Amino acid sequence: MTDSGVRTAALIVIGNEILSGRTQDVHVQYVGDKFSALGVNLVEVRMIPDERKKIVMCLRELKGQVDYVLTTGGIGPTHDDITSECVAEALNLKWCRHPEAWEILKKHYEMQAPPVEFNEPRQRMAMMPENAELIPNPVSSAPGFKIQNIFVLAGVPKIMRAMFESVLSQIDAGPRFLSETIRLIGVREGQIAQKLSEIQNQFPAVTIGSYPFYDEEGGGVAIVIRGRDEVIVTEAAHKVRAQILS
Amino acid sequence: MTDSGVRTAALIVIGNEILSGRTQDVHVQYVGDKFSALGVNLVEVRMIPDERKKIVMCLRELKGQVDYVLTTGGIGPTHDDITSECVAEALNLKWCRHPEAWEILKKHYEMQAPPVEFNEPRQRMAMMPENAELIPNPVSSAPGFKIQNIFVLAGVPKIMRAMFESVLSQIDAGPRFLSETIRLIGVREGQIAQKLSEIQNQFPAVTIGSYPFYDEEGGGVAIVIRGRDEVIVTEAAHKVRAQILS
Repeated sequence: MTDSGVRTAALIVIGNEILSGRTQDVHVQYVGDKFSALGVNLVEVRMIPDERKKIVMCLRELKGQVDYVLTTGGIGPTHDDITSECVAEALNLKWCRHPEAWEILKKHYEMQAPPVEFNEPRQRMAMMPENAELIPNPVSSAPGFKIQNIFVLAGVPKIMRAMFESVLSQIDAGPRFLSETIRLIGVREGQIAQKLSEIQNQFPAVTIGSYPFYDEEGGGVAIVIRGRDEVIVTEAAHKVRAQILS
Repeated sequence: MTDSGVRTAALIVIGNEILSGRTQDVHVQYVGDKFSALGVNLVEVRMIPDERKKIVMCLRELKGQVDYVLTTGGIGPTHDDITSECVAEALNLKWCRHPEAWEILKKHYEMQAPPVEFNEPRQRMAMMPENAELIPNPVSSAPGFKIQNIFVLAGVPKIMRAMFESVLSQIDAGPRFLSETIRLIGVREGQIAQKLSEIQNQFPAVTIGSYPFYDEEGGGVAIVIRGRDEVIVTEAAHKVRAQILS
């Protein structure tokens, strides 16, 4: 938690397929968007390969820096799925069979028609850090889990999102953020930079972002004012309009 | 450089708009893809806000860990564009006017019809760490730069890509990667995990990734075999086909 009471989060996207360019990440925007709406500040994202040392180091570094750490990927049955054991290692916890996860998985495979073998690789998905709390997986059964301030989610977007929804309902989000966007068509950043900088200095309680865009008509700049106090955000936005559109 | 001679890279995506969910990142896949084709291993991505302390820390941490560090974003004229001064700080270099960048920018604004003012915020875009080498910007003039092993690129995708192309031609890529993908329709990871793990152990020189996918027909698993030696990659892929498709 920051001094202001705003909750912070970090996301660790685990998987070689993201870094090799094979797969376009879709988690960052999804998480950023949902957290923004809730008032949680996503302060950092890391994308790392399926490598034990890297995953453990990353978890250890981030878990003390933010209120919530999310991971995606690496919780399936194959040899490159090592997130769960890395979380145990990062927290110096035993990595052991989770009885409830075991039951869920066993039942899931028995219930298939025809039933499929609950074999060793599938059984590995029931291995979790000691005392992990399950995060349900309504898509393909194999659960994610929460341990301390770390939430371990699947990498497949459909499953990840279902898991994330249930995480959202569990966390204390703190005060909310508000934002106002002003689109200035045909304007260039260099024209407004000076005034914008002055307004930012006058309103330290908001963050003013400036985002150039390009389209067929030549583009412009989108100004985004973000803060927790509605009155101040509105006032800053009013100032931007009055000073820049004049 | 790793022991094997493979070059490594890290990408720092700078910008609140990525973390807030406002903007979908498109740099990671683009860079990952281009580097893969070239044989450079993208080993980490960080996405961080426009915050001086964070940017400086990140640069200092990564520049010693990899051969090439790329940054995107934060080199425009507005108050939230602070990447260039952070790079100077991270490297303990003076941050000063780059004469060539100054000339490029001055000319660019003079040549507009009607000419636009080369004002203070625009002049700031000519400020760079001492002895930076320019990276040309064929889209909107304001150059990126290279200093030591850090390449500072724009955040707007069209500009970023133009800059990245000229970076690619400058770097020593080392030996190439090859990859082979085997799509197994109607297969579940749990069925093949054991065999796959055995094959991975037999071929330590390749990385075998397993990526479940879901589609209307129910999906399957894509197996990706990646390595630098064509003979070994082909042999490993052959083994996967022989053992798993049998």
